[in-house]
Amino acid sequence: MTAESHRTPEPEFGAPDPTACARLLALDWGTSQLRARLLGAGGQTLALRQSAMGIMAVQGGAFEDALQGLCGDWLEVWDGPILASGMIGSRQAWVEAPYLSCPAGPADAAAQLTRVAMRKGRLLHVVPGLRSQHADGRHDVMRGEETQIWGADLGAGECVVLPGTHSKWAWLSGQSQVERFATFMTGELFGVLVRHSILGRLMPSGADRQAVSPAQQLERDQTFDAGVNLGWSEAAALTHILFSVRTAGLLGQWPEHALADALSGMLIGAELAAAARFHVGGRSMRVCLLGDAQLCARYQRALQLCGIVSRIAEADATARGQWRIARAAGLLP
Amino acid sequence: MTAESHRTPEPEFGAPDPTACARLLALDWGTSQLRARLLGAGGQTLALRQSAMGIMAVQGGAFEDALQGLCGDWLEVWDGPILASGMIGSRQAWVEAPYLSCPAGPADAAAQLTRVAMRKGRLLHVVPGLRSQHADGRHDVMRGEETQIWGADLGAGECVVLPGTHSKWAWLSGQSQVERFATFMTGELFGVLVRHSILGRLMPSGADRQAVSPAQQLERDQTFDAGVNLGWSEAAALTHILFSVRTAGLLGQWPEHALADALSGMLIGAELAAAARFHVGGRSMRVCLLGDAQLCARYQRALQLCGIVSRIAEADATARGQWRIARAAGLLP
Repeated sequence: MTAESHRTPEPEFGAPDPTACARLLALDWGTSQLRARLLGAGGQTLALRQSAMGIMAVQGGAFEDALQGLCGDWLEVWDGPILASGMIGSRQAWVEAPYLSCPAGPADAAAQLTRVAMRKGRLLHVVPGLRSQHADGRHDVMRGEETQIWGADLGAGECVVLPGTHSKWAWLSGQSQVERFATFMTGELFGVLVRHSILGRLMPSGADRQAVSPAQQLERDQTFDAGVNLGWSEAAALTHILFSVRTAGLLGQWPEHALADALSGMLIGAELAAAARFHVGGRSMRVCLLGDAQLCARYQRALQLCGIVSRIAEADATARGQWRIARAAGLLP
Repeated sequence: MTAESHRTPEPEFGAPDPTACARLLALDWGTSQLRARLLGAGGQTLALRQSAMGIMAVQGGAFEDALQGLCGDWLEVWDGPILASGMIGSRQAWVEAPYLSCPAGPADAAAQLTRVAMRKGRLLHVVPGLRSQHADGRHDVMRGEETQIWGADLGAGECVVLPGTHSKWAWLSGQSQVERFATFMTGELFGVLVRHSILGRLMPSGADRQAVSPAQQLERDQTFDAGVNLGWSEAAALTHILFSVRTAGLLGQWPEHALADALSGMLIGAELAAAARFHVGGRSMRVCLLGDAQLCARYQRALQLCGIVSRIAEADATARGQWRIARAAGLLP
């Protein structure tokens, strides 16, 4: 067991060995993390292990070694099918799994798995990413989120939002067919502006993690709301309103401990305004949030301010999506 | 002479000593540079020295030492008035010179100079920055650009643009009265996204400085134009279109050596779209560009694409602005 990995406790004496009744080894292999699950006959998680060996941490293309490092003991005694989704299928990673064009569902992904030969003649089945073409000819891409969407319990025609570094908004046709989607760099913009721009200079460091009093929390919430309203109403002038984080800080109009909330609110507000313009069709937009609970709650607050109805779905639907793809691909007995 | 400073050559034998007929020592003291000029009876530059001792480089508040390091020999033999403009008047620098509210002209600045006592009883006169209030209550601030504007040869009622890290758009009432202005973080966003975001990953390093073939230059120009059009027409979705720099790079739709131009174009296009909405009054917008020649040319290309008439003013009008303020303040004989 390496320092980076975290395994579920070893089974106690007499506890069932997860490999005994596993049907699928499902790898959720992203930029910064590798999660491996042994799934049982109903798709339930029998064992979960994770490590920091995301694709950025793997040196010299040693992906198989990274997998062996986390799951070598399982692979020693168990020879069932292995499926991987996420950035592991990108050009810079183990194998490029070409993008599937939207509209696309789990059956389409199952029909376009990319196979990699591993040692001892085993195969790794890699899930393709998705591409979506906008009306103006530009494309959008995703890798990993499609599997989360396909595993989530979504209504036919729902709009699903996965907030994060690169927020994804996907519009479904049918229950799990991704019709089209759009990416917003909200999370990454927030991060680089806080860490590397002049806007971060006035923010107390580690403010997000600091314990705050109820009065300070109220100020933070109010400043976040002010940011959302600015981003939502003046999204077109984002490069302008961002500078208000500095001026309002300099002039004492927003408290310094809440400046990061103002920035977060502006960027989320601008995302919502833009995404609302992507929503076509007569029906009012209702969205389903999928992802980190704290981030989903922040988005739900912003959506409510902007008059958009939302609900929060279960946090991690990846394993169920992987199970569905494996089943459609005939990998399960 | 320190390693950071660059002085004009020492006068040759028989050449006039600039301190002999200097009327003003004018300091343009910004974040990363200090420029000192001795100005003659007509405001002409008799001598110019500059160093990298911008306010960020000065340790422990030793601003007077930094000034002595660059101009000590002048101050030894000459005792005329000293005026400084730029970030030297900010809270973190030598002395806070409170912001002057718009509308404001050189005479208003002259009436609100902040005086700092230096050694041997000398005074430094610091030019205030400007603040402008937007209709929604937010403020904008500038320090240094106001002096450039006041020194430029502008028409009454013109709109002046100073492109840069934090682009400033100022609307004039009368010939040199700044009625209001707005800031756009265009240059800083470009820099942090190239250096610190995923968008920079696909860009060849140092691409801007590479020698390019005429064919490559054409590709770069065309990609810049495509970026401008996207930023101008879909500015509201900036956090979305930015990600196109990555997808178009991944899918080979834009050449990698032109991705930085696409990003630059998008950010400038978004700035122009937002600034156009700030322009009020029936007349069509005409702008005067003030600043770095290469950057002004880039903006002029973008403005033309968006149907906005522009002209490029002289590059550095700071000394003339400082001269006008000093005259209005009665500092000149």
